[in-house]
Amino acid sequence: MNGADALIATLAKQGVRACFANPGTSELHLVAALDREPGIRSILGLFEGVVTGAADGYGRMAGVPAMTLLHLGPGLANGLANLHNARRARSPVINLIGDHAVDHVGLDAPLTSDIEGLAQPMSDWVRRSTSPDDLAQAGAEAIAAAQRHPGAIASVIAAADHCWGASSVAPKPVAQPQAVPTDDEVIAAAAEALKASTTPCLFLGGPALLGDALDAAGRIQAATNARLICETFPARVERGAARVAVERLPYFGDAAIASLTGTDTVVLAGAPAPVSFFAYEGQPSRLLPDDARVVMLCEARDDVEGALIRLADLLDAPTAVSSTRATADVTPEGPLTPASVAGVLAECLPEQAIVCDEAATTGLPSFLATTAAAPHDWLTLTGGAIGQGLPVAVGAAVACPDRPVIALQADGSGLYTLQALWTMAREQLDVTTVLFNNGSYAILNIELARVGLADVGDTARSLLDLTQPAIDWTALSTSLGVMATQVTTTAEYRTALKNALAQRGPRLIEVMVAPRA
Amino acid sequence: MNGADALIATLAKQGVRACFANPGTSELHLVAALDREPGIRSILGLFEGVVTGAADGYGRMAGVPAMTLLHLGPGLANGLANLHNARRARSPVINLIGDHAVDHVGLDAPLTSDIEGLAQPMSDWVRRSTSPDDLAQAGAEAIAAAQRHPGAIASVIAAADHCWGASSVAPKPVAQPQAVPTDDEVIAAAAEALKASTTPCLFLGGPALLGDALDAAGRIQAATNARLICETFPARVERGAARVAVERLPYFGDAAIASLTGTDTVVLAGAPAPVSFFAYEGQPSRLLPDDARVVMLCEARDDVEGALIRLADLLDAPTAVSSTRATADVTPEGPLTPASVAGVLAECLPEQAIVCDEAATTGLPSFLATTAAAPHDWLTLTGGAIGQGLPVAVGAAVACPDRPVIALQADGSGLYTLQALWTMAREQLDVTTVLFNNGSYAILNIELARVGLADVGDTARSLLDLTQPAIDWTALSTSLGVMATQVTTTAEYRTALKNALAQRGPRLIEVMVAPRA
Repeated sequence: MNGADALIATLAKQGVRACFANPGTSELHLVAALDREPGIRSILGLFEGVVTGAADGYGRMAGVPAMTLLHLGPGLANGLANLHNARRARSPVINLIGDHAVDHVGLDAPLTSDIEGLAQPMSDWVRRSTSPDDLAQAGAEAIAAAQRHPGAIASVIAAADHCWGASSVAPKPVAQPQAVPTDDEVIAAAAEALKASTTPCLFLGGPALLGDALDAAGRIQAATNARLICETFPARVERGAARVAVERLPYFGDAAIASLTGTDTVVLAGAPAPVSFFAYEGQPSRLLPDDARVVMLCEARDDVEGALIRLADLLDAPTAVSSTRATADVTPEGPLTPASVAGVLAECLPEQAIVCDEAATTGLPSFLATTAAAPHDWLTLTGGAIGQGLPVAVGAAVACPDRPVIALQADGSGLYTLQALWTMAREQLDVTTVLFNNGSYAILNIELARVGLADVGDTARSLLDLTQPAIDWTALSTSLGVMATQVTTTAEYRTALKNALAQRGPRLIEVMVAPRA
Repeated sequence: MNGADALIATLAKQGVRACFANPGTSELHLVAALDREPGIRSILGLFEGVVTGAADGYGRMAGVPAMTLLHLGPGLANGLANLHNARRARSPVINLIGDHAVDHVGLDAPLTSDIEGLAQPMSDWVRRSTSPDDLAQAGAEAIAAAQRHPGAIASVIAAADHCWGASSVAPKPVAQPQAVPTDDEVIAAAAEALKASTTPCLFLGGPALLGDALDAAGRIQAATNARLICETFPARVERGAARVAVERLPYFGDAAIASLTGTDTVVLAGAPAPVSFFAYEGQPSRLLPDDARVVMLCEARDDVEGALIRLADLLDAPTAVSSTRATADVTPEGPLTPASVAGVLAECLPEQAIVCDEAATTGLPSFLATTAAAPHDWLTLTGGAIGQGLPVAVGAAVACPDRPVIALQADGSGLYTLQALWTMAREQLDVTTVLFNNGSYAILNIELARVGLADVGDTARSLLDLTQPAIDWTALSTSLGVMATQVTTTAEYRTALKNALAQRGPRLIEVMVAPRA
């Protein structure tokens, strides 16, 4: 057995079931080891941003890490933006990055670079193999590191000669660190603060938006009348009919501040105190009211679920909260607008759908419209590094093969990692991509006005424009193997969405939401 | 005047003429400053790998830096792979990377990351702005840093509040470091070594492959009968009829070793002693014969041209070398093969063409066939980070608007940065992309056999395969605005290439070089 086999066998034994890969020559022994390991499904991405984004989506839905396989420093570099998003999502991910043989590194061959230096900014844990025997041990440690609650980015750099060298030592067991429980005093302080408040708010993030933790938040709301608000870009929210409803903090700082004005008490659970996405001249970055009482109940890496349940119990909150709300009974018609698009989604959303939202300016109405739709999960762009939506949809579909995945995708960000469509086609993933084609980086045109630069000239406008030439997303999707349809009315959109959801496998619907230049 | 304006004005004043950009909210004041600066042409890329690769191609052809405009850490991260190639090419490039306002960084907003940490591995010089007044100074220093002979990667991180803040201080002049001349003793030693040798070789790289330096190498060859060999992946070689012909070191280590066997003396000019691209079990990485006498005449950052001219003079070499060779008079016909494709290129290559070669397994015959074709420049994948070809073609076309650019592009690597096609369409760049569609990462299938893994199974094969589904490059190119044609015979290819070269503007020819699965 060589080091590569020992490593891959260790990962498979400890539960890794999917590998998103884009290997090169230095990783071929790892490819051969994957070939011999039936427990891991190996999936090719045609660009590393697809690979790492898919691992993020997989981790968010599976709760256990997928692995990536990346080619040296440049291969890792291409995957860093989506690792940034994955790190912000606290998704469990194991990166396996090939390196030259140890003696070769010092010769400065063309593909040599500082792999640790590249890995560090977007990883929570980085480890280089030291010998063939050490590779499996590095893998075992990576699994523990990636499963640090609720998930972390663990990167292993595997030298080629460690992969092809003989390995005979089994890895030692690695202890899995447990999430830290919140102190009783903090639970009590949070309870006191909520009880003393007239306008309380529970600000939720990370694991607080799932399962029993979310139910506990609903119980706390029932006992205290606290508003439930979540971070603007949560990794994953369970929502829809019969689930606890959570508001989402607005994206723009002034809107967020307006939303929170008057709140006298904020209990933070799984999220830090919110700050604006960007800084604006003369505007505050911190979004909570200055005079609000703020209690940090638990950070995302703590035992969030335990803390919320204990807080609910201490408040004598009702044990079961019924959150059933009526589904809005609208049948939108007419021209395509973000609102009509949202209405159709709410109408058609299947049970247990997974919505991957990178729809930018077009996405918020869809989120709002589906609050009481069929139960589903909503995944967002956690780190702001665009090009995340389609890859995350790939990973979510691999993690949950029996659930329909809907990718709400803006055109500008979709172009970053459009290669994901090919992987959807190859793996016949059940992903319906709803591509909102408005022919611009629309958010930046909004931001231009917000920073007082609305009167810029043609050069600036051209840098935010995606027409000239217009991009034909239907042809583009088809060229990569995903059947596609363009729609220009709400009725056409409804028909296309229903058709796509009625069959398995990937489809793309190009939604023309604004006139083209 | 704000800091952004002062910075952009400084860059324009010191000769920056092109900006390849993909900005975000934190860079909008820089966008507005570019809007007000008529001296710089701003060009949008729909992915940052296009942006940095274009800056590389521009730098290789213009000899002066273009600037990039990148959005925070993730935007930079997306551009790192092509910065790796640019650094290996020693291209002059100025990266301008936006950052949050200083006070905002510490709040850890979602898009915050360690930008310096990301920039360092692929930059030769990194500098963060310290105030609005300092931004222009940082720009002036970046220009000097990027023009360190023959070129370097200079990265400026510009805080948003330094961009919008008032600036009133003009930048201080920055001294431009000069390339170091080679010591007389080293020149003499190289001359002695060549004269004493029976099988001498001049191993050339970097600036040695251009202009007077290349002519001097030809003179040295005439005086000593030295073989002229260049590094496997040169940034730019001037070649074709009437130019000094240089062999290219083979890619595979065993072939390179075989090619150099029997060489008793090697003089290195502008390139280090060659090493194999990858390490292979039980095979040497160093490629020069163990017993060869090796003289380092000059490194790429030294005064390479001066060293070669002085060496030629010391050898009393003839002052003008006629290198005219007859063009091969072949008219290839029949099915498409790498050889017939190469023959058609040699036949059709226009005067002063710029060939950007990322054709991988299909490219070498084209290089060999064009040794005596019309004079042209050949640009290669210097750092091995694939996805470089189409972006470099964009940059070369912007730098040299009156020269035809031909991008020889493999399908696997072309998919990394296919968004470059859109920029070609928008800017109506005179680029003919010859896309070799063989439906696989063919080089990796060759490497599998070379590392003794030829008998792998379906999983491994699937990770190297680009069919299932097959990618329709003609439709893909058209969807991004570039007219395209598919060809399946040599005659069709000849017609398509002649047509494309006869008109200005971008075209893509999809060459089906191997049967699809």
